[in-house]
Amino acid sequence: MLIKRSLKSEYFADLKCLCVSLTIKSECMSENRICKLFGIKYPVVQGGMVWCSGWRLASAVSNCGGLGLIGAGSMHPDVFEEHIRKAKLATNNPFGVNIPLFYPEIERLIDIIIKENIKIVFTSAGSPKKLTSLLHDQGILVAHVVSSAAFAAKSEEAGVDAIVAEGFEAGGHNGREETTTLTLIPSVCMATALPLIAAGGIATGNAMLATMILGADGVQIGSRFAISNESSAHENFKNYVVNSKEGDTLLSIKSLMPVRLLRNEFFDLIRNAENNCASKDELQNLLGKGRAKKGMFEGELDEGELEIGQVASLIDKVLPVSEIMEDILKEYHTALKILQNKSLYQFDNE
Amino acid sequence: MLIKRSLKSEYFADLKCLCVSLTIKSECMSENRICKLFGIKYPVVQGGMVWCSGWRLASAVSNCGGLGLIGAGSMHPDVFEEHIRKAKLATNNPFGVNIPLFYPEIERLIDIIIKENIKIVFTSAGSPKKLTSLLHDQGILVAHVVSSAAFAAKSEEAGVDAIVAEGFEAGGHNGREETTTLTLIPSVCMATALPLIAAGGIATGNAMLATMILGADGVQIGSRFAISNESSAHENFKNYVVNSKEGDTLLSIKSLMPVRLLRNEFFDLIRNAENNCASKDELQNLLGKGRAKKGMFEGELDEGELEIGQVASLIDKVLPVSEIMEDILKEYHTALKILQNKSLYQFDNE
Repeated sequence: MLIKRSLKSEYFADLKCLCVSLTIKSECMSENRICKLFGIKYPVVQGGMVWCSGWRLASAVSNCGGLGLIGAGSMHPDVFEEHIRKAKLATNNPFGVNIPLFYPEIERLIDIIIKENIKIVFTSAGSPKKLTSLLHDQGILVAHVVSSAAFAAKSEEAGVDAIVAEGFEAGGHNGREETTTLTLIPSVCMATALPLIAAGGIATGNAMLATMILGADGVQIGSRFAISNESSAHENFKNYVVNSKEGDTLLSIKSLMPVRLLRNEFFDLIRNAENNCASKDELQNLLGKGRAKKGMFEGELDEGELEIGQVASLIDKVLPVSEIMEDILKEYHTALKILQNKSLYQFDNE
Repeated sequence: MLIKRSLKSEYFADLKCLCVSLTIKSECMSENRICKLFGIKYPVVQGGMVWCSGWRLASAVSNCGGLGLIGAGSMHPDVFEEHIRKAKLATNNPFGVNIPLFYPEIERLIDIIIKENIKIVFTSAGSPKKLTSLLHDQGILVAHVVSSAAFAAKSEEAGVDAIVAEGFEAGGHNGREETTTLTLIPSVCMATALPLIAAGGIATGNAMLATMILGADGVQIGSRFAISNESSAHENFKNYVVNSKEGDTLLSIKSLMPVRLLRNEFFDLIRNAENNCASKDELQNLLGKGRAKKGMFEGELDEGELEIGQVASLIDKVLPVSEIMEDILKEYHTALKILQNKSLYQFDNE
């Protein structure tokens, strides 16, 4: 009774496979809605992440049959353009970009996206209402990232082509409702019939299958790819994540803008200030500017802001993207096979 | 590489099926470890919850093939004894009790458990070290509730027979690490090989299957059963939960003891005090005594403390336990069947 659209095979009949409009080398063999929509082999999207997801990471993921995204959030427009050009040279498969809607020069990003003939845009942190029709007019697919069912419904009204529903366990900026992926995905399934990508807390093939059972068509994976060889994050940051343990990330700076951070000196500084009822201005001053760059890109582990998901504690090695993708898909298919063991998983005496 | 014990068929060979020692009418047909351990038909445990889980709820769940638990946390010892006696009359199937280890007169509870020949005890909120051997000497099975992999490992050292790993989304008292079920279950799987029950955020058969894919052998469901006909919670509370929406619960009172509460006047009172840096003493005074009883048992929705999980927003009706169990198992088996659709869920070209 609860999940009105739990595993939505009934929607496939209606699906217009938009990937035919893309000028891509499609390996879209599956009936899976995310594979069909983006013309990719596996429903695995690499999250756009500040200071991690440049052309090298995005093209590596796309070359492995997933969907790589160049994260514009930490790039000046000219750098963004350069990354798009390099990604085009590095892969013939579909890739996309992620743009946070609060980006100050967003018009310049849009111009570049159109000029460079990018056909997949993920938007986040804002309302996709205005931008979606503009991008659609250019034949661009739009997926929007939300942290609540209410915003999923609004995004559908705005006309987006797919939803990314990102739970509390995700790294970086996050919703105020603190809804975890396990609760969020069924809620979003009730709010919208759009193709749905689960995000937050997914670093393994088992978690991928688990969220698809909850109703997602595919997954967005951030942290695991942030700690790959191809991620542009600093080696210090990658090693610090590898050595982190459970409980080492917490949702922080809630009075300004909730963001999941890894514990370090900066984290404690903010936390102590919050515990002492610092004002928003005081927090903003402590935060300053360029903290994420300092921590994640320049590797200053004490002073920098270290954004990563709760799954950081599960990541125990820096690996090439090809190995990560292989691991995830192997785990996924193994889990799928094990479920066929009737004596363990079937209780209905059939 | 991440999940060292993701779906643990390899452990079944070693499992000593302890349920043979129980004087129960076993319907234990499955090879599932939780079913075998407790001698039950379905690996569904009803969480012990203050003011909700008396003999009526526990026996109803056990009669449906799950494992009902009488929650001692909100009972005086004599009331607890009465509930055990009534449950014995109401079901011939195995049922158990849940005792929070900070209970002030815990020795009296233990005496009653032994005298009444209870063979399944779930412990929570403390270290199970001392109590486990005492209970084992009486032939009693012990499952311990944890919110971290570190405590799961300690519980295994203490000799418990099963672990309940409860994520951030769970109602009531909760861990400080804020680890969600999606992240917690794989971590606990790496820390212990014991039979594992996932809890927190599970109200549907899809969520049940999802957590089992993450490595759990079974699930503990609280909130969904708290809002059943047989729950002893007040009708006002049940209806308030049914009408709640996403974002209406938050982990609160973190400086004293983190507890997930449903928004109401009392919630706002505490929240405002915390935002104004109230001291622990001030918070303790605001909290006072008997708030949970007032809210959940007496139905005073403004003044009372309303403990419920994040899945509250998914619960849309008060139903009898038999319908809830039927729904969950139907959803579970439907999800299991849909996964056999190769064109949607299989990407390895086999």
